[in-house]
Amino acid sequence: MSVITIERKVLEKNDQVAAQNRELFQRHRVFVFNIVSSPGAGKTSILERTLEELKGSLRIAVVEGDVQTDFDAQRVARYDVPVVQIVTHGGCHLEAGLVRDALVRLELTGLDLLVIENVGNLVCPANYDLGEALKVVVLSTTEGDDKPLKYPTMFRNAAVLIINKVDLLPYVNCDLARLRRNALQINPGLRVFETSCTTKAGIAEWCDWLREQVSRQK
Amino acid sequence: MSVITIERKVLEKNDQVAAQNRELFQRHRVFVFNIVSSPGAGKTSILERTLEELKGSLRIAVVEGDVQTDFDAQRVARYDVPVVQIVTHGGCHLEAGLVRDALVRLELTGLDLLVIENVGNLVCPANYDLGEALKVVVLSTTEGDDKPLKYPTMFRNAAVLIINKVDLLPYVNCDLARLRRNALQINPGLRVFETSCTTKAGIAEWCDWLREQVSRQK
Repeated sequence: MSVITIERKVLEKNDQVAAQNRELFQRHRVFVFNIVSSPGAGKTSILERTLEELKGSLRIAVVEGDVQTDFDAQRVARYDVPVVQIVTHGGCHLEAGLVRDALVRLELTGLDLLVIENVGNLVCPANYDLGEALKVVVLSTTEGDDKPLKYPTMFRNAAVLIINKVDLLPYVNCDLARLRRNALQINPGLRVFETSCTTKAGIAEWCDWLREQVSRQK
Repeated sequence: MSVITIERKVLEKNDQVAAQNRELFQRHRVFVFNIVSSPGAGKTSILERTLEELKGSLRIAVVEGDVQTDFDAQRVARYDVPVVQIVTHGGCHLEAGLVRDALVRLELTGLDLLVIENVGNLVCPANYDLGEALKVVVLSTTEGDDKPLKYPTMFRNAAVLIINKVDLLPYVNCDLARLRRNALQINPGLRVFETSCTTKAGIAEWCDWLREQVSRQK
């Protein structure tokens, strides 16, 4: 029981810092999303395709969260956008305080869009508000259509679901209609995109939607 | 700092219960492995193929760990083996105490092999000993060849790596040789199998190895 109490206190403390981050983002009129998924679902690849599409028209920065290594930050830095790497050294999720510390190294003034790429984990990051406008959960078709029911908190707390790797549908045991149905059963308000970072299917629709969110923030 | 201290105490308590579980398993001469991976890497599918292959010759039972739902236990129960479902209700890993509670519902006498299928999470279950003889980590080729370096603790604490979904290699950006190299860089002692639950490639080798482990336990 003591552990539960402490966890609640950790979450309360996290939420306070998240509220401060959110205030900071709103003051600078930056649209911020927190992108979450299992390892290897394609968060960084979606980010790469998004940067290709939007870099000319929007000013974008990235905060990368990883358990270990700065591989993802290196991939993103090739697109010539400001990127800050947070290494959690075994920690299973980002917390608002880590993001606040990362923000010291970013210029928010003039920024349109900030992407926070979380640690690859479909469980723990669900409960940690970082101050983002919304969470985007990525699920790969290779993970199977039952995952929204098996890991419901993440799908409940996200506003957007990107179903990625749709190019692999012919080769995997995943029913796209059932996946959508399962996700919407958990969270009927989910905005769903279907993408492939290989064929670039769905990337334009996702980026159009992002542009709209950014313009609303202004 | 207080959180770290408490986490250490939680781990110490867990390790005490894990040691009791291990003693119980050894007394009954049951070989026990704890199978871990990201969501959707194929733990349950490997278990299904393993049950098909070994059910006639070995007495097997399964403990299923899930954040929510008993879908995996239902899949496993079709093979007519004893299965106990643990639902963590949001918890991101199994703990030794949960396994101990599940064991009350299993007859260990006469059992050869007990499989504990952990929650889909490549981070948190790495640090929790359940009393198993060893951890088997499953990584799908669809997750990419960089994952052992990005999530090193799990690969360091496992004795076996199953690289699953090798049938998808022609369609995904994953260099099998590099994946192996990265995994062995983290843990040179890893026993590596390459499998496909669709084509059944590698399943016989994996099951032969399992038979050997079981016979050593007797």
